[in-house]
Amino acid sequence: MAAGDTTITVIGNLTDDPELRFTPSGAAVAKFRVASTPRYMDKSSNEWKDGEPLFLSCTVWRQAAENVAESLQRGARVIVSGRLKQRTYETREGEKRTVIELEVDEIGPSLRYATAKVQKMQRSGGGGGFGASSGGGGGGGGFDDPWASAQPANAGSGGGRSSSSFDDEPPF
Amino acid sequence: MAAGDTTITVIGNLTDDPELRFTPSGAAVAKFRVASTPRYMDKSSNEWKDGEPLFLSCTVWRQAAENVAESLQRGARVIVSGRLKQRTYETREGEKRTVIELEVDEIGPSLRYATAKVQKMQRSGGGGGFGASSGGGGGGGGFDDPWASAQPANAGSGGGRSSSSFDDEPPF
Amino acid sequence: MAAGDTTITVIGNLTDDPELRFTPSGAAVAKFRVASTPRYMDKSSNEWKDGEPLFLSCTVWRQAAENVAESLQRGARVIVSGRLKQRTYETREGEKRTVIELEVDEIGPSLRYATAKVQKMQRSGGGGGFGASSGGGGGGGGFDDPWASAQPANAGSGGGRSSSSFDDEPPF
Amino acid sequence: MAAGDTTITVIGNLTDDPELRFTPSGAAVAKFRVASTPRYMDKSSNEWKDGEPLFLSCTVWRQAAENVAESLQRGARVIVSGRLKQRTYETREGEKRTVIELEVDEIGPSLRYATAKVQKMQRSGGGGGFGASSGGGGGGGGFDDPWASAQPANAGSGGGRSSSSFDDEPPF
Repeated sequence: MAAGDTTITVIGNLTDDPELRFTPSGAAVAKFRVASTPRYMDKSSNEWKDGEPLFLSCTVWRQAAENVAESLQRGARVIVSGRLKQRTYETREGEKRTVIELEVDEIGPSLRYATAKVQKMQRSGGGGGFGASSGGGGGGGGFDDPWASAQPANAGSGGGRSSSSFDDEPPF
Repeated sequence: MAAGDTTITVIGNLTDDPELRFTPSGAAVAKFRVASTPRYMDKSSNEWKDGEPLFLSCTVWRQAAENVAESLQRGARVIVSGRLKQRTYETREGEKRTVIELEVDEIGPSLRYATAKVQKMQRSGGGGGFGASSGGGGGGGGFDDPWASAQPANAGSGGGRSSSSFDDEPPF
Repeated sequence: MAAGDTTITVIGNLTDDPELRFTPSGAAVAKFRVASTPRYMDKSSNEWKDGEPLFLSCTVWRQAAENVAESLQRGARVIVSGRLKQRTYETREGEKRTVIELEVDEIGPSLRYATAKVQKMQRSGGGGGFGASSGGGGGGGGFDDPWASAQPANAGSGGGRSSSSFDDEPPF
Repeated sequence: MAAGDTTITVIGNLTDDPELRFTPSGAAVAKFRVASTPRYMDKSSNEWKDGEPLFLSCTVWRQAAENVAESLQRGARVIVSGRLKQRTYETREGEKRTVIELEVDEIGPSLRYATAKVQKMQRSGGGGGFGASSGGGGGGGGFDDPWASAQPANAGSGGGRSSSSFDDEPPF
């Protein structure tokens, strides 16, 4: 359980298909980026124009991660609600970088320009858990961060990115 | 276009199927209620328990209204983002009442416990419109408020509620 | 501790001086109303005009309540952050009414049109508490709701409103 | 006027005194960083502990900037409401970096642990302006961005940072 988190709602479009992975213990994690483009009234032309988009990297856990991977594709317009988190990592050159990301509590496809056929999940036996994730996130990573040692879902497929690469660059 | 609105994101469940109507000029409007139930840690039992739910009446316009009516049913868990609005009406007894409602900007089914098959709408020719509604709503009703003279979608089907009934009670 | 609350930030002006009371156990509570007025662009005149104000009743607890009562007066522009709560009460006629109010987590005077001389409180011995209030609020009232049996701060000053009046009308 | 911005409210403490500057045309701008520290319940000790702080760089304009510089010091607890903006800059090495910052709409000192003596500004003749800034910001910089060519308030005082340094590093 956490208090005092900085919560935020973002409305935008997925820049790519969500990427789904599993922790060694089997928990699902999905990552994706949302591009949110404000519009502003251009006074000279008296027309609405696109402003600078905001790109936000998002992480979602467990059952919701699997649902996101199954339901959303690149370009999908979504509503995302979660908590802003700061993450510091080291580049290959040993430089420290800090990024701000979104730990997703709730996400759904926007019905502004689309319809959706919603299929409720069967509540599986052990399942649950997502709420727990939301709580356990308070510590900001550390031992309960499956991403730290995450293997791509299709790992072993011939070299490429080694697991150690996750230590010196953002996994996405 | 409006500024200084009080925006809010609500996560909860539909208490009923959305009710879809059309204004005389043909604009779609859907209304529904969302029940949002916080949970709190009960110290005596050390268990999570449900707190008092918050019920919020919501209005959504145009294409999004039709998409909501087609996609969401009673019980659906949703993420709703919009602006809090106050509405004053008079009861049959001539008493004034004020209620706080949500003018929806964006809504979607939550993927926390469900998957969704998303179907993008064809952008119709003249279309647009929804953004315009969001902008035009600044005045808080008035001539552009289709609800003021709204007829049930299946109007004419034998009396029942007269249009004037919308003047002395909330339509929903 | 609570989760899943509907949080909101409101910017507006106090409609009156805050009203400060104390529970039998000595906890401070302040109530006040905030009027938040959106502005919208009037297309015919091409000018900004005031929209319909939103009035929101707010409750703040303990040390913060005393600070609010000491620092803010009618008309003050404030930023208020908190959780929307629904409260049901019975009128004198036995009718049930439901209102939506704001349980304040954090409030401050806006520096948009004003300066402020900030004076930090000495942390008193037992003190703390405000965080606890925020947590304990999850249950939505009940035995830990000092307002239920609240006496006006200047009680005993000659009748007027009896304590029982709090049962059939909103205390503010 | 802008629509579709990603708005957010942050509660935290100033990491330093705000830094006030003026654009060539005389508009005030203040920058500062807010550290927001969530707390989480540590299950092993059953105690609240501090989580990882979130650091957010903030910019505020015109009269509000001057009020912030006059009213707030390092360590002050504040409520900040604004819009998330992404800014890309180039390092001395020619590398592109992107940071997420907060364009402040409203800010005030929190009354949770402090009182405040609020002093309303005289509305100066031409004044206004702040609302206009909020509107004009939609384009995300460009010709109306005083920071692009900003001189330190105490410019000319003997070399140090040259104005060109603003092109290859964040000014704060």
